[in-house]
Amino acid sequence: MGNFYAVVAAAGRSTRMGRAVNKQLLDLAGRPVVEHSLRALLAVPVDGIILVVTPGEEAQFAGALADILQRENIKIVPGGASRRASVGQGLGALPADVELILVHDGARPLARPDNIRAVAGAARRWGAATLAVPVKDTVKMGSAENFVRETLPREMLWQVQTPQVFCRDLLMEAHRAAARDGYEGTDDASLVERLGRPVKLVRGEYTNIKITTPEDFALAQILMGSDLN
Amino acid sequence: MGNFYAVVAAAGRSTRMGRAVNKQLLDLAGRPVVEHSLRALLAVPVDGIILVVTPGEEAQFAGALADILQRENIKIVPGGASRRASVGQGLGALPADVELILVHDGARPLARPDNIRAVAGAARRWGAATLAVPVKDTVKMGSAENFVRETLPREMLWQVQTPQVFCRDLLMEAHRAAARDGYEGTDDASLVERLGRPVKLVRGEYTNIKITTPEDFALAQILMGSDLN
Repeated sequence: MGNFYAVVAAAGRSTRMGRAVNKQLLDLAGRPVVEHSLRALLAVPVDGIILVVTPGEEAQFAGALADILQRENIKIVPGGASRRASVGQGLGALPADVELILVHDGARPLARPDNIRAVAGAARRWGAATLAVPVKDTVKMGSAENFVRETLPREMLWQVQTPQVFCRDLLMEAHRAAARDGYEGTDDASLVERLGRPVKLVRGEYTNIKITTPEDFALAQILMGSDLN
Repeated sequence: MGNFYAVVAAAGRSTRMGRAVNKQLLDLAGRPVVEHSLRALLAVPVDGIILVVTPGEEAQFAGALADILQRENIKIVPGGASRRASVGQGLGALPADVELILVHDGARPLARPDNIRAVAGAARRWGAATLAVPVKDTVKMGSAENFVRETLPREMLWQVQTPQVFCRDLLMEAHRAAARDGYEGTDDASLVERLGRPVKLVRGEYTNIKITTPEDFALAQILMGSDLN
């Protein structure tokens, strides 16, 4: 079993938080949000982590994460103009002998190591896998004029999370193709899907939320201290 | 402008709450969950409400809601074997002169009167309308073997909420057709869509959550006391 590295995307803007502070560095139960995400991956364990941040924020992250950076194999690199480009920057910073690559959102501090192991196991078997949960709500496709075009079959819908895990060569090829074609996508799995390659859906937990809004952060505070997760 | 009545669906099982108590009657900021939902509608205002509960639970609801039942035009009726059948029971209990019908989940205590007025206004104009919010997550369609079939175009996806509001004759026809065909659907708008009739999507709030799990309830407690909603 070869080297297993993670790329953590922490370069997003925090515009929906309505705060001056970066959501990745908000204090959640005594630690920055992103540190919880890093610790979950280190518990799996992964062999190392590339942490991708907004260009110019490297020193801020290095300061906030000084303790864990000293003890663990974590490298901070500056991101790009889109999520896809930022993950691409992270891929470029990986050691040459990596065999399995995990991509995770820095703002998902509640990912559980047992779920992460499950999605990594599926990626070893199938080449690509993502954590996901069945959609609970009715989801409809809308027209440009905001009329319903169709109600989608809920029993087939998955709300996709991270971590997503990939065999190295497949993810590298998918990113090269997406960059060449100017395809951004909303997640890394979609870049692999474009190549016609299978992506396994691995059921995770509803509590593995991404912190985007103040109410997400409030919920994360509750979940962090509860036995709900 | 004719009579505007609401049917509130409160007959669902609470299996995902993991508690013996009915989620509709949990104490949220000093009142049963469903009472918040009823009050939001009465503030719009609606002319009356049919509250549909699980058969056998009528007395329990009547006791928990004694105060508001005494003051307001609210009638409790027993539901059916599915959500669709329960709303159908509520429709059967409406007065004959109703012109506009609102359908709401009893477990959505955070609906805002201004949003409810907006969806009612859209229904008057277009015949049918639902509150909805743009989907924030990547949503994929999965195969029976849990592989990704496709990533759906996120910019076109709406997560649908209640209230949903309909002109009377249209909703009655949609329910008759669905009952005849054994079509359950996951919401009332989908019954109207089956008839090929337009349904307007009206943007609401992410805070208008449906309480399904304990973490939803914890979030509702926060939102109820905060200025996030």
